[in-house]
Amino acid sequence: MSRVNIKVLADQLQLSVSTISKALRDSYEISDETKKKVLELATRLNYVPNPYASSLRRKKSKTIAVVLPEVADNFFSLAINGIQSVAETKGYHVLIYLSHEKFANEKTILEDCQSGRVDGVLISISSETNSADHIYKLQENNIPVVFFDREQEAIETARVTTNDFDCGFLAANHLLQKGCHKPAFVSISQSLPICLNRVNGFKAALHKAGIPHYDNQIIYCPDNDDMYKQIKSILQSDQRPDGLIASVEKIVTPVYLACHELHIRIPHDIKIIAFASLDTAPILNPPLTTITQPAFEIGKAAATLLFKGIEKSSFDLSKEKLVIPSALIERESTM
Amino acid sequence: MSRVNIKVLADQLQLSVSTISKALRDSYEISDETKKKVLELATRLNYVPNPYASSLRRKKSKTIAVVLPEVADNFFSLAINGIQSVAETKGYHVLIYLSHEKFANEKTILEDCQSGRVDGVLISISSETNSADHIYKLQENNIPVVFFDREQEAIETARVTTNDFDCGFLAANHLLQKGCHKPAFVSISQSLPICLNRVNGFKAALHKAGIPHYDNQIIYCPDNDDMYKQIKSILQSDQRPDGLIASVEKIVTPVYLACHELHIRIPHDIKIIAFASLDTAPILNPPLTTITQPAFEIGKAAATLLFKGIEKSSFDLSKEKLVIPSALIERESTM
Repeated sequence: MSRVNIKVLADQLQLSVSTISKALRDSYEISDETKKKVLELATRLNYVPNPYASSLRRKKSKTIAVVLPEVADNFFSLAINGIQSVAETKGYHVLIYLSHEKFANEKTILEDCQSGRVDGVLISISSETNSADHIYKLQENNIPVVFFDREQEAIETARVTTNDFDCGFLAANHLLQKGCHKPAFVSISQSLPICLNRVNGFKAALHKAGIPHYDNQIIYCPDNDDMYKQIKSILQSDQRPDGLIASVEKIVTPVYLACHELHIRIPHDIKIIAFASLDTAPILNPPLTTITQPAFEIGKAAATLLFKGIEKSSFDLSKEKLVIPSALIERESTM
Repeated sequence: MSRVNIKVLADQLQLSVSTISKALRDSYEISDETKKKVLELATRLNYVPNPYASSLRRKKSKTIAVVLPEVADNFFSLAINGIQSVAETKGYHVLIYLSHEKFANEKTILEDCQSGRVDGVLISISSETNSADHIYKLQENNIPVVFFDREQEAIETARVTTNDFDCGFLAANHLLQKGCHKPAFVSISQSLPICLNRVNGFKAALHKAGIPHYDNQIIYCPDNDDMYKQIKSILQSDQRPDGLIASVEKIVTPVYLACHELHIRIPHDIKIIAFASLDTAPILNPPLTTITQPAFEIGKAAATLLFKGIEKSSFDLSKEKLVIPSALIERESTM
């Protein structure tokens, strides 16, 4: 069975394509009698309008893009749920693009988004991204952009983030209060604002407590594949930290595995705290203290702002900076 | 700056829209000199073709839909990565739709997919779905459909699954060998083939071992919110199982939490095994024995078959049934 389109309806009713199209759009040019005939046949044949054709008429694709580094991370999968919850009420589709933490992929994706395929873009940038041109081009093409979680600071637009600096400070203070003398911060990027803000909060807490610099205070693990080896070698060194803050969720498993393998006891020999939305945090060995971000709420708020920008071109997105605070949930890994 | 479209190019070059369009499509009707002028201006103004307009010409949207229950599950997020890896090489977009385990959502999504928005659909059905009409309608509209993991058995098309019956059998045998006398199977659906096949494998192993029926042999937990309470009440009953097989990943956290709260020791008092792709399985308390599905490979194989169906309408998808085996990884939860 071939697809039922306007031409099929026109042929069967012996009317012109233009008449059918106008009838379906309830145009005043068409009689009620004809409209009724067209609608009856359209319903009977299960006619569905082609969204590309109607997109061209409306100049709206009724689609937004969500560009993010990966979905195998509970923060992002929960944020997607928050975004979808808003898009559904607006009758919009959500196109999910993954950059896999590569700047080149992100650039290609945004070039594609310029072409009318989407009405707006929600983006959480890759850990490699430290240029803004590819995002600026979207704005030049009148496509509203909203950042969530990971932002590119040079771009003026709405952003929904969490209180990363405060949480870095809070996490470091928590470790110091629990008796750590040499806590370390494990980061995946030297340029991502979320990582920088968390690191800066960590440093500020150490500074305030009068703790001098030591080796391995900040550890960069940009590469997923090397993470386990790199962490293990630091845990085996003379400069072993007595506390670790994992800046993102995927650092948790390699850290725990390395500690288990080296018989380094958590929390006795080393205390661990992670920025993570892991469902399994309370059942890890031992249960993991987390800074838990309001992932669903961040997604929801970012989507809400984006739709304001899409629906009303006069709405000034650049004035919108929303910070939704995270919470420290204490468990045995820092007791 | 407004978007650069064919009309802008036509105005600037004082040519007709039709001439510009033909020049960009390299038509023989247009002189080389004009083509050169058009291309130079298009390049200079950063012109990007509107994909909806060119989709209408080609009758291809260059987009596939992936319909799945949720992304907050490592199986699905890894499968998405497998699908994306194929779509990227084909220059296709991936539209990700979430049914949130609701049949009504899935139905609306597939109605939308009928309309020319996508060239093909990869689907893993919701736990509520036991009708096939909504999928059949897609096929009637000549949109190829491929199932991955969770299939609707009434529909004739390609499917990529894992050896669910064998794995149910394997999991039950593993528990029996480890000394369980009353193992139970925890499922989320009485109709999903993956759950039924796993349950049937479980039952077959019990039957083969000559184990008679007992209460709580099969436990259904269709509702996420009630899962923890339901599992806790079974663990508190006189008919407490001495082994548990979790049919999907999201059952793991409530099971472990309930055991911890009730001071039921894993694996001493109860042995646990789960169908799960959890990154954190080896660092749980205790490390979790899993049936680990080849999630990435399943996604990749399903996408490869779908593109065969899209590229060649004579390709008979209904003949393709691929089974990629899972592996049992033994850890402390069943020792």
